[in-house]
Amino acid sequence: MAQTRVVIVGAGFGGLAAAKALGKTPAQIILIDRANHHLFQPLLYQVATSVLTPSQIATPIRGILCKQKNTIVILGEVTGVDKDQKRVFVSDADRQDVPISYDYLILATGSTHSYFGHNEFEQFAPGLKSLADAEAARNKILQAFELAEAEDDPARHPDLLTFILVGAGPTGVEMAGALAVLVRTSLKSEFRRIDPASARIVLVDMAPRVLGPFSEDLSTAAKARLEKLGVEVRLGHAVDKIDADGIIVAGERIASKTVIWTAGVSPSPAGKWLNVETDRAGRVRIQKDLTVPEHVEIFVVGDTASLDQNGKPLPGVAQVAMQQGRYAAKVIHNRVTGNRPPDSFSYFDKGSMAVVGKGFAVLQSGKVQMSGFGAWLTWAAVHLQFLATSSLRLTVFLQWIWTYATGQRGDRLIVHHHASPAGTPARDTATQSAVVGK
Amino acid sequence: MAQTRVVIVGAGFGGLAAAKALGKTPAQIILIDRANHHLFQPLLYQVATSVLTPSQIATPIRGILCKQKNTIVILGEVTGVDKDQKRVFVSDADRQDVPISYDYLILATGSTHSYFGHNEFEQFAPGLKSLADAEAARNKILQAFELAEAEDDPARHPDLLTFILVGAGPTGVEMAGALAVLVRTSLKSEFRRIDPASARIVLVDMAPRVLGPFSEDLSTAAKARLEKLGVEVRLGHAVDKIDADGIIVAGERIASKTVIWTAGVSPSPAGKWLNVETDRAGRVRIQKDLTVPEHVEIFVVGDTASLDQNGKPLPGVAQVAMQQGRYAAKVIHNRVTGNRPPDSFSYFDKGSMAVVGKGFAVLQSGKVQMSGFGAWLTWAAVHLQFLATSSLRLTVFLQWIWTYATGQRGDRLIVHHHASPAGTPARDTATQSAVVGK
Repeated sequence: MAQTRVVIVGAGFGGLAAAKALGKTPAQIILIDRANHHLFQPLLYQVATSVLTPSQIATPIRGILCKQKNTIVILGEVTGVDKDQKRVFVSDADRQDVPISYDYLILATGSTHSYFGHNEFEQFAPGLKSLADAEAARNKILQAFELAEAEDDPARHPDLLTFILVGAGPTGVEMAGALAVLVRTSLKSEFRRIDPASARIVLVDMAPRVLGPFSEDLSTAAKARLEKLGVEVRLGHAVDKIDADGIIVAGERIASKTVIWTAGVSPSPAGKWLNVETDRAGRVRIQKDLTVPEHVEIFVVGDTASLDQNGKPLPGVAQVAMQQGRYAAKVIHNRVTGNRPPDSFSYFDKGSMAVVGKGFAVLQSGKVQMSGFGAWLTWAAVHLQFLATSSLRLTVFLQWIWTYATGQRGDRLIVHHHASPAGTPARDTATQSAVVGK
Repeated sequence: MAQTRVVIVGAGFGGLAAAKALGKTPAQIILIDRANHHLFQPLLYQVATSVLTPSQIATPIRGILCKQKNTIVILGEVTGVDKDQKRVFVSDADRQDVPISYDYLILATGSTHSYFGHNEFEQFAPGLKSLADAEAARNKILQAFELAEAEDDPARHPDLLTFILVGAGPTGVEMAGALAVLVRTSLKSEFRRIDPASARIVLVDMAPRVLGPFSEDLSTAAKARLEKLGVEVRLGHAVDKIDADGIIVAGERIASKTVIWTAGVSPSPAGKWLNVETDRAGRVRIQKDLTVPEHVEIFVVGDTASLDQNGKPLPGVAQVAMQQGRYAAKVIHNRVTGNRPPDSFSYFDKGSMAVVGKGFAVLQSGKVQMSGFGAWLTWAAVHLQFLATSSLRLTVFLQWIWTYATGQRGDRLIVHHHASPAGTPARDTATQSAVVGK
């Protein structure tokens, strides 16, 4: 009898948790991702703001799973699913649509940024989902200071030194705080013609408050902290336009050469591949055991799945993806080993956190609410704990202490990368990795 | 009276040494480079082979010089020199050919790779001069293993798992050794369908021996060590052809998907900008005080300069560039402060080193010759000492110990970067940084 094969698509938080949980299952596990690394997305903004290097938040998937002998890791992009024949199609730099058959399938393909129908914004306001995105944002931010320093005419400095973040969720808030600290500490003494501390950082959102999923008290605390750091917070109005010269919001133009998109996300095309019912955002509606209706062998987990609990949809955060990945693995393990299925999936919310600048975070867990330095220490401890390897935990820990103490950042490089070589499509490596909130 | 202005073009070893040496000179120093970082090129091959991360060998130029108050750093690309009006033209992402005038000019614009008239080789055999090059090589090497692992048909594995290095100078030899160690240690247990240790590494050169500038004994020792590591060394024949399927050398085709160019260099266009006499390779012929004839205010140093000492041209290595940079600074300092000029420039050769694999190097200094572990320790100590900052010295030191002890590498990421944004030409950041041999 041929061995049971489990195909997992996506090595973000959901897919990786599933793969690890299947490590002792008597089955062949094939994990497919279009990046060769698992990305710790909650810290991506620290790469964009030069605190951490890419290799401090990204770990080769093979390295994580090298001791798990039943698991094969494949670098490739899934392009579709054939439910009837039970196979997925994979493309890589060399070949197109190679079929790989499965007995069980876990789709953990995450989400990408969404411009809410304004795709024309993307060229002027790139998002933050992959390492390539974060390095591009870092190049853009650092280059703005370089252009201003090279510019004799001070009249041209203000729009070069205005940075706009569109979207005041955790990514926007954390990015704004990190940028404010960057311009006021690390860059302070390095320029002669401009004062980096004069840089204007604007955080815009149509919502009435920052950090929407948090309590109103914590939102208020976060906003106050941002303003103390010199960030302009503009709420209650959607951005009307983004172009090469800046944005228009509430009828006012804010001139800027550097706009970063930290707003919405849209799910991967898993729903289209499966041709099943999705919610309004396009996420696959799944059942209590995380399978899709009429296909007990197909699981969908994480950001690309839609599941209600207590009448509310589960949020697109790392914890949901990880718990769902582990649950799907458990169901499969029990079926393969002939045990009875586990109880229905139930998400246990450990809480949410967001950092604002240096030594300050907000934290909400059940009825516990904290803001300030204690919350920041908790944030640091939890995030270190979730990094993929012990050597990363050590280097990130040391880097944070170093940056905290000296104000110096790890990685202020502008690198003009070659485009991907011929035959390798320039991929947004994120779409297929699970996405993480706080 | 207006302040004297010294313009230095290029922040490689030569330009940076000059800028530092002018730190206390009563003059305005403007240092222009098209990268924002000083690159420690002797370790570039360690980025290409995943040992070090880019930020471990590259340091923001501003960071290095931030305490030097008389110095302005400009990120931009010099496009020409007007000797009569005493000004250089600088372009950046925003503007074209902005003139910057000088009283003294130091051109330290380095070199780029040369394909000896076969520019059609470049697309199949990229070189190693900039961070972008090294990251592209790393992507290519790691991806070859991924493609082989994803490929069911073992008949297609050999050409994916064949790596060819064209040029057996220090870069080619060090790269071949590092690759051999990579495939036999770090990658060993990570694949299921392929055995990375079966990878074929071929080092090709038309010269009769590896490491031409070293003594014959050391060449022989290095070659023996490479062969012990499993590297095929093919000497005495030029490569006739390089294409998408591999190379042809001495009439034989060697099939490979990964060819890296580690052979010749050609100088920057400084000679064309100045419209002065160059040597056969295109380097500017300079005088004993490192100026060009008839222009006591224009100095050319490093790889892009040609100067004979004891009847032989000085080699294109970091030490020459640094000593020349410091000398040019001294001449300028003395003129500005009204002191008498220093004695003619004379290069003091401290020696050369090259690493072969792990724990083995060759070293030649005057009549001293060493090979083995002691030479490797010396190599490590000297290279750590020359890194730009103490925090880099520490992180690289720890990384080396970690890699030496565990076989694990720091940075095995494949990142498909976005191409440079519109308006920013995709630059080879190396051409304008000084180049380094051993």
